[in-house]
Amino acid sequence: MATIKVPATVPSPAEDCDQLRKAFQGWGTNECLIISILAHRTAAQRRAIRATYSETYGEELLKSLEDEISGDFERAVLLWTLDPADRDAQLANEALRGWNPSNRMLIEIACTRNSGELFEVRRAYHLRYKRSLEEDVVKHTTGDFRKLLVPLVTSYRYEGIEVNRKLAKSEAKMLHEKITEKAYSHEELIWIITARSKAQLIATISYYKNEYGKSIIKDLKSDRKNEFLVALRAIVRCICYPEKYLEKVIRLAIKGLRIDANSITRIVTTRAEVDPKTIETVYYKRNSMSLKQAVKDHTSGDYKTMLIALLGNNV
Amino acid sequence: MATIKVPATVPSPAEDCDQLRKAFQGWGTNECLIISILAHRTAAQRRAIRATYSETYGEELLKSLEDEISGDFERAVLLWTLDPADRDAQLANEALRGWNPSNRMLIEIACTRNSGELFEVRRAYHLRYKRSLEEDVVKHTTGDFRKLLVPLVTSYRYEGIEVNRKLAKSEAKMLHEKITEKAYSHEELIWIITARSKAQLIATISYYKNEYGKSIIKDLKSDRKNEFLVALRAIVRCICYPEKYLEKVIRLAIKGLRIDANSITRIVTTRAEVDPKTIETVYYKRNSMSLKQAVKDHTSGDYKTMLIALLGNNV
Repeated sequence: MATIKVPATVPSPAEDCDQLRKAFQGWGTNECLIISILAHRTAAQRRAIRATYSETYGEELLKSLEDEISGDFERAVLLWTLDPADRDAQLANEALRGWNPSNRMLIEIACTRNSGELFEVRRAYHLRYKRSLEEDVVKHTTGDFRKLLVPLVTSYRYEGIEVNRKLAKSEAKMLHEKITEKAYSHEELIWIITARSKAQLIATISYYKNEYGKSIIKDLKSDRKNEFLVALRAIVRCICYPEKYLEKVIRLAIKGLRIDANSITRIVTTRAEVDPKTIETVYYKRNSMSLKQAVKDHTSGDYKTMLIALLGNNV
Repeated sequence: MATIKVPATVPSPAEDCDQLRKAFQGWGTNECLIISILAHRTAAQRRAIRATYSETYGEELLKSLEDEISGDFERAVLLWTLDPADRDAQLANEALRGWNPSNRMLIEIACTRNSGELFEVRRAYHLRYKRSLEEDVVKHTTGDFRKLLVPLVTSYRYEGIEVNRKLAKSEAKMLHEKITEKAYSHEELIWIITARSKAQLIATISYYKNEYGKSIIKDLKSDRKNEFLVALRAIVRCICYPEKYLEKVIRLAIKGLRIDANSITRIVTTRAEVDPKTIETVYYKRNSMSLKQAVKDHTSGDYKTMLIALLGNNV
């Protein structure tokens, strides 16, 4: 369930555009007005606003926003205003252009979105960058990471709940063998992790623990500095415990000496219409503090107002 | 442009279902009535007929057809009546269940459909078989074929016409090196052939011929009995000259000592709403005879009537 609060009577896109235009005019920008509109509209409503704005003023809304606001606030508003698939395409592209093996963005996108959503990201990537997501994965990554990430982003996992127990058993055995041999990038291991349906993979991982006494996550911790193992663990976590995974990302982003605004913005903007309540519940259990309070305590200004609005406060 | 002839005033799906039901009743089946309806409706109209039939009679139209007709005629009517993506999913599944390296069905589907259509086949595969197409590719194929076919069926090629000349040049060099070394299943070669946009790949292949004096198709003929090389050639042909490729499939299917009805049925039913005129033109140039005449000469009975109706004759 989404946390954003949409008014009972939503103004027409033309009225919203008119108000946004007013927010941009004059000496200063009216940030509160921008938030009071955009943070309280669904993806479909924001799409209608973008289209109407472009038709009416001959300029893209995102461009106008870029000109008017800045910093973390700008990034939060721009990411939020985008369509979810287009936003993910942009995030994936940023991750690839500045690629380093510790970046888990692609894994987050490929594994916490459903199969149809991941395909929509690939479609949006075509439109935005005039090439395919997988072409950029190959261009920017190398070695084992390339072997892992290409099938991960091109996968279209079956989404049914049916589980083949016999297969789960044999693939748990295969995973255990490869992990024991430290053959972490073996093609069978990569295949199982990147292509099986989530229900099937969860069954395999559960069988792994029952049969071999230790969770696959623990067995993949043998070398803590090995970024490839961290990536494999991230995939398993995103598939089996997506809320816990996302809670951890935002917890670490808030808890550091300096907050990691990029990660906070990403999690809030990408999840506010999906599962923020679940992430909040996990966050509260883990930290004995509401996520909203933690965000309030560690951010400031218009950026704070925007995030809190997306997390469900009226402004 | 499609060859099927749809009446100026199309009866309602309910009227069509009523007529089909009449065709099934009594002592014999009225095959002509079946053809006069189904062969003259578009994919969307056939979908509406299937839905109405199932609602009205509590039975699937395809099941009723199966009970009433048989042989090559049955296969042509059943394949035609399906949605294009669902039909391709069924054909892909048949190819995989009876997998042998000389079967080119998967290549035909993956390379002559556009990127969106190929994705729709993957979606239809989920619905129909409760698992993904790529899971079945891995289950039924081995070795180099698996290395080739998994990326081929999971690819989502960019469809724009933009070409990067520098990339075409460097990838033509890479292809030439690998082919010269007989490293036909090298991952870079497979990557280029399975993932690059069709426009980019066509540019690369054209550059290959200009730079190295021989076409890549010829260079891939070094070992005529090597089925993997035949598969690579089929991919290049399906991308660069799809109509020529499909013309050859139907020509060989007609010319053998015994006709290959499966291939004729497949080409006619899968292309009748796509590019039959182009295939007919290529067929006429190559064989100095119209495809329709060739099909008439080599088939008979209701099967013949059905194929000719799909190729544009009124019945």
